[in-house]
Amino acid sequence: MQMSMPRPAVPPTVLVTGFEPFDQDPVNPSWEVARALDGWDGGGATVRAVQLPCVFGLAVERLDQALAQWQPRLVVGLGLAAGRSEWTPERVAINCDDARIPDNAGRQPVDQAVVQGGPAAYFSTLPVKAIVQSLRAAGLPASVSNTAGTFVCNHVFYALMHRLAERPGVRGGFVHVPALPEQAARHPGLPSMALDTQVQALRVTLRTALAVTEDIVAVGGQLH
Amino acid sequence: MQMSMPRPAVPPTVLVTGFEPFDQDPVNPSWEVARALDGWDGGGATVRAVQLPCVFGLAVERLDQALAQWQPRLVVGLGLAAGRSEWTPERVAINCDDARIPDNAGRQPVDQAVVQGGPAAYFSTLPVKAIVQSLRAAGLPASVSNTAGTFVCNHVFYALMHRLAERPGVRGGFVHVPALPEQAARHPGLPSMALDTQVQALRVTLRTALAVTEDIVAVGGQLH
Amino acid sequence: MQMSMPRPAVPPTVLVTGFEPFDQDPVNPSWEVARALDGWDGGGATVRAVQLPCVFGLAVERLDQALAQWQPRLVVGLGLAAGRSEWTPERVAINCDDARIPDNAGRQPVDQAVVQGGPAAYFSTLPVKAIVQSLRAAGLPASVSNTAGTFVCNHVFYALMHRLAERPGVRGGFVHVPALPEQAARHPGLPSMALDTQVQALRVTLRTALAVTEDIVAVGGQLH
Amino acid sequence: MQMSMPRPAVPPTVLVTGFEPFDQDPVNPSWEVARALDGWDGGGATVRAVQLPCVFGLAVERLDQALAQWQPRLVVGLGLAAGRSEWTPERVAINCDDARIPDNAGRQPVDQAVVQGGPAAYFSTLPVKAIVQSLRAAGLPASVSNTAGTFVCNHVFYALMHRLAERPGVRGGFVHVPALPEQAARHPGLPSMALDTQVQALRVTLRTALAVTEDIVAVGGQLH
Repeated sequence: MQMSMPRPAVPPTVLVTGFEPFDQDPVNPSWEVARALDGWDGGGATVRAVQLPCVFGLAVERLDQALAQWQPRLVVGLGLAAGRSEWTPERVAINCDDARIPDNAGRQPVDQAVVQGGPAAYFSTLPVKAIVQSLRAAGLPASVSNTAGTFVCNHVFYALMHRLAERPGVRGGFVHVPALPEQAARHPGLPSMALDTQVQALRVTLRTALAVTEDIVAVGGQLH
Repeated sequence: MQMSMPRPAVPPTVLVTGFEPFDQDPVNPSWEVARALDGWDGGGATVRAVQLPCVFGLAVERLDQALAQWQPRLVVGLGLAAGRSEWTPERVAINCDDARIPDNAGRQPVDQAVVQGGPAAYFSTLPVKAIVQSLRAAGLPASVSNTAGTFVCNHVFYALMHRLAERPGVRGGFVHVPALPEQAARHPGLPSMALDTQVQALRVTLRTALAVTEDIVAVGGQLH
Repeated sequence: MQMSMPRPAVPPTVLVTGFEPFDQDPVNPSWEVARALDGWDGGGATVRAVQLPCVFGLAVERLDQALAQWQPRLVVGLGLAAGRSEWTPERVAINCDDARIPDNAGRQPVDQAVVQGGPAAYFSTLPVKAIVQSLRAAGLPASVSNTAGTFVCNHVFYALMHRLAERPGVRGGFVHVPALPEQAARHPGLPSMALDTQVQALRVTLRTALAVTEDIVAVGGQLH
Repeated sequence: MQMSMPRPAVPPTVLVTGFEPFDQDPVNPSWEVARALDGWDGGGATVRAVQLPCVFGLAVERLDQALAQWQPRLVVGLGLAAGRSEWTPERVAINCDDARIPDNAGRQPVDQAVVQGGPAAYFSTLPVKAIVQSLRAAGLPASVSNTAGTFVCNHVFYALMHRLAERPGVRGGFVHVPALPEQAARHPGLPSMALDTQVQALRVTLRTALAVTEDIVAVGGQLH
């Protein structure tokens, strides 16, 4: 007689997206950080890192493929915010594409909806306050941001939340990250954060996001 | 026989709100600017300026009274954004109160909805791009802003748009304004804009908002 | 018999210099402010406003002509500091030309002395702390600055102080001023100060500089 | 018979100073970076790291002891510039103590000379342009600064250059450094640079300062 072996439990997956370089810079920290943790199991789930093109529309197609392929329980999008000095979990995605510069395919939508007929905005379902608190406790600079802009980052963030709105068990959100020191060396005056520091920040972010399903109540707003 | 006299046409009304001082400052430019144009007829409508308390909830009660009293066809809320150097028409109001400091009544809501069950956000129905273009053409510094913060300004802006959502013929929005020079003289390093300049900016804003019912297509987004 | 008539007392002169436009901008507030007070007698002395070319060397030649012509008892140089939001009396001029961009004649000296063999620096002989205090008391934003940069402004400031070092009775210095609102309207994000406000600031500066010969002791330094 | 052994050549010494913490912060990156390279021989000389008290006067006494003890051929002072995002070699030290806050002993000099009767300023004798160029080439953010402020950093910098003016063979200068990430985690919004990055920057700075005795000609000035 043969014992039926229990199927090994498939560990849950966390999808982390980063962007290809844009705006004539040869590197994008959002992807460098994401791929550094591809395959990492630290938070009780396996990280899958996926690079998105910095192109309106195409980025969402690639996101959809990754969602279908990996069936993640948690999705964290990363994007570069040149000029910010901290990791900034985004609070809200808005239904607006308004490109200040062309994307990598030369597209420059102005004041168009990300999703025609979609709601004006979605709030992140990541515990943004708990993430900021955990990052700071680990000595990592962080603040909640109330705007993800109107470029491809917000585009992907909104599209992601629009999809997750129909998948109640899957949480997700977006974090803007600073430039790398090597970028600041080419753009005098730009704040930066070392890659090691940013990878550590992603670990803390993912662990917190997996562990905290209901955000803490902590002051973290902006007067304007 | 008695001729029926034609009823004199009542000129349409524009409601402009400003805030009382807060955060220990003796003056608030948003109210100084608003009241400077109380009764002004320049844009084909009569301006009514109303001061709101810098208090969550109470500010909206006062707004409701003003809406009922004046039945405006256009509503422009003004609020101080200390640290900004330009007039910044706000693009979007979000359904979130998250007070970094207590309001003038000591209230400090954290991550609460402005309107329970309301949509995540409302877009301004002012022609924000056209307003920025008109202001710049008049030599007045201006940019579109993508976040009104999470304090009483955003609270009033969201509550306003929630009400206007049910009054199709009435448009409205919010503009954050810089500190006055006298405030910057007490807070070294703060950018400022003279009261005269700001009053001129309000005139241009109101004229443009009355004349332009469908916004222009103009680049004015932010990368992040 | 003829009475000898007493010669009418010649009122002392204050020389105020401003610069012509540079860096492709059609206007320079330093000259607009200076010329607005040309001939003004408010502080017990008559203002003579002189425009300097934004050219290394030539600017000093023009300054020398003005010093010879007007024999001023006080000299205040004005220059634009795009990006500053306040009136900033400069504390110190350094013996260094280091041009980040070419001047209006295409000259771009790098790490050259303003005056070969001159001392490394001169301190302003204006009462910079008293001027800042008076400006703030009048509701005008102001702070002491510890660097006038290394472009034509510092060049003129250093050359002026080098000349005044041999004229014990004549005091002088330099003030950097913000952009005008019309400039900020062309350069989104730039802080600005209205021309009226700046002219008022020049009045306060000149009155204080004429009245206060020994500066007050007031905190006004920078950590770095 | 006893052979006389040749005396081992004493390698030249580089003195690097950092400061103790101040302004209520538990750590000071200037000292953390300096002590990380104490004993390092990488640039053809041995580094000696010395911590200075953040106290006017006492800091210079400690500096004098270190100069006497180590007889360095090169001296590099380091100090924290909270708010800067780059390594900033300072161009010039001015003869002025003007403390915005009390030092660690409660002293707060206002507009006093560092050295009574000393010259108004000294230029750094480090090759500041070459250092910035080397740092950037190594992917490390850096810019020349034209003001070291008027607090204890400038005080030590000026006192150092005053002493080196009489030791023709010894060069020296000062570099302001950014906050550490752990400090920025406590002060939201502050730019920072990781300790590893800063230690790497010190290595590049020392190697360049030892190798380059005459600075390169490179654009690096400021308009104001």
